[in-house]
Amino acid sequence: MITINPKELPVMKLQLMLQGAVAPRPVAFASTIDEQGRVNLSPFSFFNIFSANPPILIFSPARRGRDNTTKHTFENVKKVSECVINIVNYDMVQQTSLASVEYPEGINEFVKAGFTELPSEMVKPPRVAESPVQFECRVNQIIELGTEGGAGNLVICEVLRMHIDEKVIGENGLIDPFKIDQVARLGGDWYTRASQGLFEVAKPNQKMGIGVDQIPSDIRLSSILSGNHLGQLGNVEVLPDETSVNEYKLTELAEIFIELEDDATALEQALHHRAVELLNAGNVHEAWLTLLAFNN
Amino acid sequence: MITINPKELPVMKLQLMLQGAVAPRPVAFASTIDEQGRVNLSPFSFFNIFSANPPILIFSPARRGRDNTTKHTFENVKKVSECVINIVNYDMVQQTSLASVEYPEGINEFVKAGFTELPSEMVKPPRVAESPVQFECRVNQIIELGTEGGAGNLVICEVLRMHIDEKVIGENGLIDPFKIDQVARLGGDWYTRASQGLFEVAKPNQKMGIGVDQIPSDIRLSSILSGNHLGQLGNVEVLPDETSVNEYKLTELAEIFIELEDDATALEQALHHRAVELLNAGNVHEAWLTLLAFNN
Repeated sequence: MITINPKELPVMKLQLMLQGAVAPRPVAFASTIDEQGRVNLSPFSFFNIFSANPPILIFSPARRGRDNTTKHTFENVKKVSECVINIVNYDMVQQTSLASVEYPEGINEFVKAGFTELPSEMVKPPRVAESPVQFECRVNQIIELGTEGGAGNLVICEVLRMHIDEKVIGENGLIDPFKIDQVARLGGDWYTRASQGLFEVAKPNQKMGIGVDQIPSDIRLSSILSGNHLGQLGNVEVLPDETSVNEYKLTELAEIFIELEDDATALEQALHHRAVELLNAGNVHEAWLTLLAFNN
Repeated sequence: MITINPKELPVMKLQLMLQGAVAPRPVAFASTIDEQGRVNLSPFSFFNIFSANPPILIFSPARRGRDNTTKHTFENVKKVSECVINIVNYDMVQQTSLASVEYPEGINEFVKAGFTELPSEMVKPPRVAESPVQFECRVNQIIELGTEGGAGNLVICEVLRMHIDEKVIGENGLIDPFKIDQVARLGGDWYTRASQGLFEVAKPNQKMGIGVDQIPSDIRLSSILSGNHLGQLGNVEVLPDETSVNEYKLTELAEIFIELEDDATALEQALHHRAVELLNAGNVHEAWLTLLAFNN
């Protein structure tokens, strides 16, 4: 391991390391206005949801590391404590990136980046019409985390209205992760398109899995099963009973047991490989039946 | 658009909508201890970096929406104001999910989920040895955002030490997004694997693009170019000069111009389609030469 003491690294380098590690980060495309009503639009990846009740989003327009100047968004929310946080999908990523350019004060990035202003219902800053979800927010509080270059500024936003494009709603009435197609930031110039890497991890929150520690040691210490496989096996509430295992062994596994009856090591390995295939396909129950058959 | 007034939606439903919209969210796999030194390990996706100087990470172990109970992690950091935030990669996602099960107080999720405790240098909670990046943190402050079910609790953490597995460092000395292979949370049971959706958006922060508004209208209003294409075109500092455009037209574009010399509409469309291919390949300069050739 490489160990870094943050006090011993230049701020710009530390920021690169932090941004590479804490990722992918969702993007708040924040619309604000100054006291004269001039509109600003800029993306921030120091952003997330932090509470549902009250509904709180926080983003940080940080002080610039290179010269300790502040961003127009930060100056705006200090004067007019409202904003619209727009969600960024893949179709808008190049224009959003363009809006992050440091245009002079008073320049409207809606115009520069080619987005359409949509009037808000509860706040003065406009929404981005092209964005699949828009949050109209009141800025409840601003917390400055430091005074030097690279210092973050927490803009604590309470959601007054949430607007969702019908097109991103799935059959279950919730937001469909394929349809909304958000992007997120990593280190350097890297982004990720969430819809390209989607997978599900089955885990109703109420259920209490047996845990990896309760997996029999011949299975837990297998060199064929990965940590992810053990995680899936440890997530069941109870193991299949002996009768089910035996029945499965005499039917589905009969061929393997007959073929390898004289070679216990080869048999165990074959069963573990079969379990891997089942786990990769999400079939945890049959994987357990396969693994338990060996000592049955 | 569907418009939601948060005050008119049940908290659990609102939380699902917020989590579907603000995504993908990075995962803080937080190791903490109680006053008796008993270890707890649990993942949180209300998490991000917010400042580089001081280096501040914030996560929120929220009050449960269904019964307004609090999590062991939250109780622990109130008593022992230290934690380790471990980054989660794809190889540990199933075990991490298992650690999110609500085991009784005093149960060590390192054991339940099958992770290895690695002693920390500056704080008492252990690190997750399997994690590619581990942050030893002091908890500077806890801010309770509400008292009802679903209320977030900001745990404001200052990084004292950052440990990085050499295996995730790229040739440039920074964290390689393919090698670190982080996962992130979306709504429902959905995760995304960042490395599967990676792409780069070229934009040195200093450079000031001409903006979409400065793109000639016959190009800006093209039905063939998308918003992303306009974003790329608007990100150049200057347009190619007339001589370059003419030279390009007489060489690279000669064939198209000869073939379609009698059909201006078809010629314009062919040039726009050619520009799309160039932009998709990241070749913004030749795309501009191609587009400007039409009126040259």
